[in-house]
Amino acid sequence: MSYKNFPMVSKVIFGRGSFNQLSDILEPNRLNTSAPFIFFVDDVFKGNPWLTSRIPLSYQDKVVYVSANEEPKTEQIDAYVEDIIVSFNERPSGIIGIGGGSLLDIAKAVAIMINNDGESKDYQGWDIVKNPAVYHVGVPTISGTGAEVSRTTILTGPERKLGINSDYTPFDQVLLDPELTKDVPKDQWFYTGMDCYVHCIESLNGTYLNAFSQSYGEKALELCEEIFLNDDLPSEESQDKLMMASWHGGMSIAYSQVGVAHAMSYGLGYLLGVKHGIGNCIVFDHLEAYYPEGVAVFKQMKAKHNITLPQGICADLSDKDFDIMINVALSLEPLWENAIGKNWKKTITHDTLKALYKKM
Amino acid sequence: MSYKNFPMVSKVIFGRGSFNQLSDILEPNRLNTSAPFIFFVDDVFKGNPWLTSRIPLSYQDKVVYVSANEEPKTEQIDAYVEDIIVSFNERPSGIIGIGGGSLLDIAKAVAIMINNDGESKDYQGWDIVKNPAVYHVGVPTISGTGAEVSRTTILTGPERKLGINSDYTPFDQVLLDPELTKDVPKDQWFYTGMDCYVHCIESLNGTYLNAFSQSYGEKALELCEEIFLNDDLPSEESQDKLMMASWHGGMSIAYSQVGVAHAMSYGLGYLLGVKHGIGNCIVFDHLEAYYPEGVAVFKQMKAKHNITLPQGICADLSDKDFDIMINVALSLEPLWENAIGKNWKKTITHDTLKALYKKM
Repeated sequence: MSYKNFPMVSKVIFGRGSFNQLSDILEPNRLNTSAPFIFFVDDVFKGNPWLTSRIPLSYQDKVVYVSANEEPKTEQIDAYVEDIIVSFNERPSGIIGIGGGSLLDIAKAVAIMINNDGESKDYQGWDIVKNPAVYHVGVPTISGTGAEVSRTTILTGPERKLGINSDYTPFDQVLLDPELTKDVPKDQWFYTGMDCYVHCIESLNGTYLNAFSQSYGEKALELCEEIFLNDDLPSEESQDKLMMASWHGGMSIAYSQVGVAHAMSYGLGYLLGVKHGIGNCIVFDHLEAYYPEGVAVFKQMKAKHNITLPQGICADLSDKDFDIMINVALSLEPLWENAIGKNWKKTITHDTLKALYKKM
Repeated sequence: MSYKNFPMVSKVIFGRGSFNQLSDILEPNRLNTSAPFIFFVDDVFKGNPWLTSRIPLSYQDKVVYVSANEEPKTEQIDAYVEDIIVSFNERPSGIIGIGGGSLLDIAKAVAIMINNDGESKDYQGWDIVKNPAVYHVGVPTISGTGAEVSRTTILTGPERKLGINSDYTPFDQVLLDPELTKDVPKDQWFYTGMDCYVHCIESLNGTYLNAFSQSYGEKALELCEEIFLNDDLPSEESQDKLMMASWHGGMSIAYSQVGVAHAMSYGLGYLLGVKHGIGNCIVFDHLEAYYPEGVAVFKQMKAKHNITLPQGICADLSDKDFDIMINVALSLEPLWENAIGKNWKKTITHDTLKALYKKM
C-alpha cells in the first residue's frame, strides 16, 4: 500500500481584518518593479471600495475582474495567461485570487500555466505539471469549497471537467479574513456552505477514509451542523466558523476523496453549466440511498433556511445529453471507488445514473 | 491589530507503514552523492532492526543515535553541527529527526544552524534566524508534543530554556506513521499524550483564542478524551488518533499560545532537567485555580491509567533555586498574557509561583 504525500499551503494568516495585511505579505515577494502582482477579483466587488481600496497596487500591478457566474474554463485560463505574457516584460511576481472557489481556481491555474508551456487542457489530470507555479495567494470571500487548501484547480475543458491536480497547485499563501464573507447573498452562502457539508459526508462515508481525513472531516461536519442548524450563533462567529469548516473540509477530502454527489455534479456542470455549489445540492437531495443520514440532515438544513432548489433541470434533455453527462460522471473513477468500493462498477451503471439524473 | 502569518509544514504523509516510503520521499531531495542525509534517531531504537533496517542509507548518509533522556541543549546542537561540517565536504541534503519531541527539535535546530553562523543560543527567541534551513524531515515515534507542526524548537541554553521561533523552523516534510508508536512505554505514552491535552486546555482557555485555534483545539481535545477515557478503543485506532490529536493540538497552539502549565514546566525543566511531558503533568495537577474543568478531567485520566506522578520534587530546593525557576517561568510573557490577560502581572507574582512550586 502506498500513501499520498500531500503538499500543504505554505503559509496561512487568519483573522477579521487580516486583509489589511495583504501588502505586508506580498511586498517581500515582489521580484522587481517590472514584475507585477496580478489580482483576479470576483466582479461582485467591482465598485465596492470597502474591498477594492484595500487591494495594494504598486508599479505595474493589475486587477482583473472576473465573473464567477460560470465555472472556470481552460480556454479562459489560456487567454489570461497569454494576456499577461504579452502585456508585461517580466513574469509576474505573483497571482492573487480574491473570491470564491472559481476565483481561487483561476488564480491557481494561471500561476501554473505561466510557468508551463502549452494549453491548460493538456494538464487536466494527475501530476502532469512539470514546473513550479508562480507565487500564488488565495483570499476566499465565500466559504465552503475548500479550494483554499486543495491540490487541484477544477476546469471545464473541451473534453472534460477535471482538475489540474499537482504538488504545485496549492497556494503559497492563504489569507483567511472571515469579514470578507459578510455580504454573501443567503442562497450563495447556503450552496457554498453545503459544498463543505457534502465534502464531509462523502469523505467520512468513503472507503478511502483514514484517521487523518476523519479528524478533519468530523470537525468540519460539527462546525457545519452548528452553523446551519443552530439559531443562536452570532453572525460574526458563524462567518469565522464557516471559514474554518471550509478549510478543514478541504483538508479532509485532500487526504481522502469526494464521492457520488461530486461525480454527478460534475456531469451537470459540464453539460448544463450548473455551478458547483448548487449542483451538489441538486444532486445530494436525491442521494438517500447512498448517504441516508447525511441527506436527512441536509433536508433539515434546507428547510430551516427556506431554500428551494431548482426542479426538473434534466426534464428536457435528450438521450444524447444524458449520455454526455453520465460519461463525465462515470469517468471520475476515484470518486466512485471511494464512495462504493473497488467493485463499484457492479452497482453503478449507466442506467443507475440515468434514473438518478431523471429525478433532478 | 496584526495577525500572525503562520508557516505550515510543506508536505505530510499519513498512514500505518508509510515509513517504508521514506526512501521515495528523500531521494528526489538528494543534492548529490557527496551531500548526505543525516538521520537523528532516538537511541531507544538502537539495535531494533524493525525500524533501523528501514532507514534508507546510501552514499555517505549517516545515522546519529541520540538519547532523549535529557532535553535538547544549545551546546549539543552546536556540537552536532560542527561535527557535520568537519565530517563532510558538502552541506547535507537533509536532516531527518526520528523520535519524540526532543529528536524532532534537534533535527529542526541542526537544519537551521547548518545554514546560519554562530551559536544556537544566539537564535533563541523570535525571528532571529536569517537564512532558510537545510531540507528537514520529521518522523514522530511518540505522539503529543506537536513538535511536528510547530515553528519552534525548544532548547535549553546557558541562560534560558527557549525556542528558536522562526518561519524557517517548520519541517519541509512530516511522515506520520502511527505504527512507529506501538512500543512506547505506558508512562511515556501518558505523559506525552498529556502534553497534547494540556496544549488544548491552555489554548482553548486562553485570551489569544480565535476560531482557527479553537477548531483545531476542540478536535484535539475530543480525540484526547476518546483515547484516554474510552476503554473500547482498539489499540491501532488509539495510536492513529493520538497522532492526529498531537498534530491538531500543535496547530491550535501554533496560532494561539500555551499557558500556565507550560510556563511553569519550563522552570522545572531549566532548573531540574525535568522532561517536558512529565513536567507538564506535575504542574498541571496543581492548576485547579486556573483550569478547573481541565484539571478535573486530567485527574480522571491519571487515575484511569494508574499513573503516579513524582511528589516533592521541589522539597529540598533553596530560595535561590526557587528564584531561578520562577524567573524562567515569569520571563515567558506571551504565555502569561495568553493565560491571564494583559494585566497578568497583577495576579501572577513571584510569591504566587513560589506557593505553587512548593506544592510540587
